[in-house]
Amino acid sequence: MMYQAFLLTIPLLMAFQTSSTSPLDSVKKIGPTSTPKVGKVDEIRNRAQFIGRSCKEVRDVYGQSENGLYSLTTATGVVYQTFCDMTTAGGGWTLVASVHEDNIYGEVHSWTSQQGNNTNWSKGEGNWANRKTFGTVEVATDDDFKNPGYYAIIAEDMSVWHVPNNTPVSHWKLAAIMRYHTERRFLHLYGGNLYYLFHRYPVEYNVGKHLSDNGPSIPIVYDLGDKESTKMFYGPNTRGETEGGFISFRATNHERATTAICSGVKPKGGNVEHYCIGGGGFFPQGNPLQCGDFTSFAWNGYGTNVGWSASKQMLESAVLLFYR
Amino acid sequence: MMYQAFLLTIPLLMAFQTSSTSPLDSVKKIGPTSTPKVGKVDEIRNRAQFIGRSCKEVRDVYGQSENGLYSLTTATGVVYQTFCDMTTAGGGWTLVASVHEDNIYGEVHSWTSQQGNNTNWSKGEGNWANRKTFGTVEVATDDDFKNPGYYAIIAEDMSVWHVPNNTPVSHWKLAAIMRYHTERRFLHLYGGNLYYLFHRYPVEYNVGKHLSDNGPSIPIVYDLGDKESTKMFYGPNTRGETEGGFISFRATNHERATTAICSGVKPKGGNVEHYCIGGGGFFPQGNPLQCGDFTSFAWNGYGTNVGWSASKQMLESAVLLFYR
Amino acid sequence: MMYQAFLLTIPLLMAFQTSSTSPLDSVKKIGPTSTPKVGKVDEIRNRAQFIGRSCKEVRDVYGQSENGLYSLTTATGVVYQTFCDMTTAGGGWTLVASVHEDNIYGEVHSWTSQQGNNTNWSKGEGNWANRKTFGTVEVATDDDFKNPGYYAIIAEDMSVWHVPNNTPVSHWKLAAIMRYHTERRFLHLYGGNLYYLFHRYPVEYNVGKHLSDNGPSIPIVYDLGDKESTKMFYGPNTRGETEGGFISFRATNHERATTAICSGVKPKGGNVEHYCIGGGGFFPQGNPLQCGDFTSFAWNGYGTNVGWSASKQMLESAVLLFYR
Repeated sequence: MMYQAFLLTIPLLMAFQTSSTSPLDSVKKIGPTSTPKVGKVDEIRNRAQFIGRSCKEVRDVYGQSENGLYSLTTATGVVYQTFCDMTTAGGGWTLVASVHEDNIYGEVHSWTSQQGNNTNWSKGEGNWANRKTFGTVEVATDDDFKNPGYYAIIAEDMSVWHVPNNTPVSHWKLAAIMRYHTERRFLHLYGGNLYYLFHRYPVEYNVGKHLSDNGPSIPIVYDLGDKESTKMFYGPNTRGETEGGFISFRATNHERATTAICSGVKPKGGNVEHYCIGGGGFFPQGNPLQCGDFTSFAWNGYGTNVGWSASKQMLESAVLLFYR
Repeated sequence: MMYQAFLLTIPLLMAFQTSSTSPLDSVKKIGPTSTPKVGKVDEIRNRAQFIGRSCKEVRDVYGQSENGLYSLTTATGVVYQTFCDMTTAGGGWTLVASVHEDNIYGEVHSWTSQQGNNTNWSKGEGNWANRKTFGTVEVATDDDFKNPGYYAIIAEDMSVWHVPNNTPVSHWKLAAIMRYHTERRFLHLYGGNLYYLFHRYPVEYNVGKHLSDNGPSIPIVYDLGDKESTKMFYGPNTRGETEGGFISFRATNHERATTAICSGVKPKGGNVEHYCIGGGGFFPQGNPLQCGDFTSFAWNGYGTNVGWSASKQMLESAVLLFYR
Repeated sequence: MMYQAFLLTIPLLMAFQTSSTSPLDSVKKIGPTSTPKVGKVDEIRNRAQFIGRSCKEVRDVYGQSENGLYSLTTATGVVYQTFCDMTTAGGGWTLVASVHEDNIYGEVHSWTSQQGNNTNWSKGEGNWANRKTFGTVEVATDDDFKNPGYYAIIAEDMSVWHVPNNTPVSHWKLAAIMRYHTERRFLHLYGGNLYYLFHRYPVEYNVGKHLSDNGPSIPIVYDLGDKESTKMFYGPNTRGETEGGFISFRATNHERATTAICSGVKPKGGNVEHYCIGGGGFFPQGNPLQCGDFTSFAWNGYGTNVGWSASKQMLESAVLLFYR
């Protein structure tokens, strides 16, 4: 065994020293100007052994405190890799999903509907309340992402990062435009994660009236930004009907269409499609201008931040969802 | 190495003890009321070493006798996880695929066509006879599933479980409404698995007449249920043209459309779309009422079990396919 | 630990000896007549330890010289399996993608557009310049394939294999109809890989004129075939406007539609859709006859090699892309 241990140590040491330079700076349009740095070799090799059910477990059981990718397993034994935030408010946050808008004027969206706006498809993809998985963690800011942790991890709180599209993993935290987390252990009341929460509050057309039938709004603690900066990310018209400092779930609009998550705000009206993301399969108004993953964030033009339109920063940042 | 061995043992022990309680009972509509139980820690850790080419090999070579997830590899070296049934009729059964109906009135189905009913698309997706893979084992009852074992394992017999949708892996066997297996080593005659069988008997529109051009029907041994219970799962009108106690392949209907598998029965007529699953890309009659993954199981209403309609139990259970 | 080491060695030895015979010869229509052979057991077991950032690293650091599947990791730590060509021109070539034509008359293609020919979708899927991944290495000749190496590996040269569809991995090199590589280290000039190259030369409708706005053409060294055999694979009409012995990138046609890669040739005219593969989301002419993954290789009939139509050999071979 000594020979194998040797084999495993030295080569990796050499391996990760070989890729020092980077040509990324030659690519302006896709942001960051350097490749992700690799941590110490010993740590990388050891991480393969830290198999926990969540990043919280990896932190508690193995004492890991560095942000990055770790291997997790479900109770059944399905092994997958995801990103752990080990530094925010004590760490132990597991990335379970990301919502990314690649074409707000298109009709194909993982977090709403892949079959376009359709009255006979009231639940759309149903991905908020099913166990399908998609995407890969390393490109969670480039594309929609959902891993087994979304349904398999039983958690208490959530953390949310808004990270500019196409940012490398190593830059996520620094590049984020907004970061916050909850501290009320609210998930205990709704089944322990979003999979169960959205079974109680289905993201489906015509399940209720706006405001009276919305899901919970939970107070948040900002790690980057505040109530005011949050409201500025959304269109001017939305500021009168939102209150900053919350994360809200299953918000219904005037036309009885539903959205999944209002990030950073609590709805006080029925135009939720302009500041809440995800949704069911049917939005009666202005088809298909309301059925993006970012619902109707571009109602008054793309990234104009005029009228009901969100800012370009918000529109071009992926929403990363963490559990703890 | 002792230090690493220690590291690997103790933490896992602690890790899997941390998730004792479960909030699942608070979610009525999705069935089971407890999370899958994790086996002994030693076993979990050791399983990572049981890399065989099939569950039969894992049983024969490593003496494993517990149902659950194991790691398998293809001859080329592709490693994947799947479920092994180590208890039925001697065990060693590898789960290679599941057929799940998520929207029988829709037009998008992995086991028939993703492009709707289409005369120019006579083979549909062709997934019965290609090497594409999709889905994940843990949610094989929630969504269509196909792993490399489907084409890579050379087997002799098949086992089939009908398991209610959204059942956790640990409950599959108990929750099943029908389970059976073959004992004639019939796969030897058709290439060793379904990938090769369906190359000889293409699931394609207009490849033959009903009955005369059907594929083989193989006698089955019931592990749960019997000939009578099988026929009761399908519509009353089908009972006159089916014989229980068989699994049948590539059955053609009156309109020259083909279906892939008739589970539990042998066709004696040409209305196979009402009791056989999967299919090619074109069904001439009643478009799109015949092109679900469960072909036309809801012809006389959803789950009514009236006329040609199958029972709700059958319609809402995934069909799990095993090799040995 | 000795017990575990023993457990790991012997069983595998037994395991891989159990699958000796093969029924594949009974399946004529899908080519090869034997299953892939498995290398020596020691090697298979050891490969799990060869975790490098590229096949070049696996060759340089671990001294591996056998073709086959290896485990690679990105800088972030995402682990994936792919094929390494360790023998051509010194070896160290990493398979990062394959382009496969499954239905040239269809409208759904990973390397062009999944939404059909569409003026409002000028970039199509954008997969040439994003970090999405799809397919699996073992079936890279059966279906489109793209792994993290496509964007994560910083390389100097490319190698390309044209391999008949549905060929098993172990037969790829022997079955190939054309193989070549570059030696000029050209990727240094374009960001280190295709992901960056195609950010500089977007594969998008209406980004430039034919010839004047094409991307680079790089001289190649043939490992199988030559300039003449290359030209024979494409339609007679193309031979007057192509020069063999090159690999070319981002070629624009007369109608301002763009293609991604011209394999083996340099365009000297504007009918590039007949000998270059991949493309943006809109081809103004003869919709949808030009929007396959193999663009318009069947313009004058399927595999006729008449007029602008490529040979059946070329049309039914996947294009495997390697980096070093």
